[in-house]
Amino acid sequence: MKKKSFSPMACSIARAIDIIGDRWTLLVMREAFYGTRRFGQFQSHLTIATNILANRLAALVENGLLEITQSADDGRASEYRMTKKAKDMFPVLIALMQWGDRYAPAPSGRPVKVLDRETGREITRLRVTAPDGRPLEASDVRLVPGPGASADDRARMLVVDRASTQS
Amino acid sequence: MKKKSFSPMACSIARAIDIIGDRWTLLVMREAFYGTRRFGQFQSHLTIATNILANRLAALVENGLLEITQSADDGRASEYRMTKKAKDMFPVLIALMQWGDRYAPAPSGRPVKVLDRETGREITRLRVTAPDGRPLEASDVRLVPGPGASADDRARMLVVDRASTQS
Repeated sequence: MKKKSFSPMACSIARAIDIIGDRWTLLVMREAFYGTRRFGQFQSHLTIATNILANRLAALVENGLLEITQSADDGRASEYRMTKKAKDMFPVLIALMQWGDRYAPAPSGRPVKVLDRETGREITRLRVTAPDGRPLEASDVRLVPGPGASADDRARMLVVDRASTQS
Repeated sequence: MKKKSFSPMACSIARAIDIIGDRWTLLVMREAFYGTRRFGQFQSHLTIATNILANRLAALVENGLLEITQSADDGRASEYRMTKKAKDMFPVLIALMQWGDRYAPAPSGRPVKVLDRETGREITRLRVTAPDGRPLEASDVRLVPGPGASADDRARMLVVDRASTQS
C-alpha cells in the first residue's frame, strides 16, 4: 500500500512522521534501542512477517537511521546498527514510553524501568521546558513562523495565536 | 484494514503506539494542539478524506483523548476538545518536531518556532535527564524489569544489559 507522503506539509512533525511515524517502524527502532542487531532477532522479538520487516529495515537504511555492518562475531552475518540520526530519536521513544506508562499501563504495572547507568536512579519525566528551566504545558507556549513557514502557515499561526490569547 | 494490535506486548512504547502511533492520528493530534476544534477545520488543514478523519476522530474520542463539546459560539456545532490524556502528549509532539527540525528540515528552514509565552524565548531541546539534571543518551541508560515485566521480558533485559556493558 502506497501511503500518502506528508512531506509537502511544512510542519516538522509531519516530516518526522513521514520517516518514523509508522507503527512497525517505531517498534523496529525500539528494538534497535534495546540492542537488537540481526534480522532474525528483530523477527523473533517482534513476531513480524518477514516481508514487512525487510521493508521497514530497508526504508530505515535508505533514510539513514540504520546502517548495515558485518558482525564482529561472525563475518558472514550482517547487523543493523543505529546511526546518530537514529540515536537522536531517544527522546521520542522515551516520551512515548512515559505516556504509555501513564495512560496505557500493562495490567500488572510498568514492564520496564529506565535507569541512569551511573547512579542507578530512574530517569526523570520528560518535560518541555523554558530556557530558565520552568516546565511548560501546551497552553504555556505560542507558535510563531520560522524561516521555512509558507504564507499559509504564517496566516494560520496568527489565527491560532489570537484564539489562544483570548481563551 | 484491521491492524495488528501491539497491546499484548508488555512494552509501554507498543501500547502508546497502539493508541497514538498512527500517521493520521499523530497529525490529527498535532492539529488539536494547534487549536483546531471543528471537523471542517481538521479536514481543510490536513486535506484528509472525510472517512479517514471521521474514523480517527472517533477512535480518539473512544480512547479518551478528545471529547465532543458544544461550541460556545454556535450551540449547534460540535467541537473536539483535548482531554488531559491528550494534553500530556505534548512532549511526544515536541520530541517529534525537534527531531524533524534537525533531520528532516524543510528546504527553507524550520516552519515553526515554539516560544515560552511568558518570556518569548524559544523552548529548549528536549533531553532525557538523570534526577541530578545530567543529560542522558541511549547508551547512558540501562533497562530493568518493572512490576509488569513478563518472564520473557526479564530474560531479555538481562541479555540486553549484559551486551551493553560489554560493548
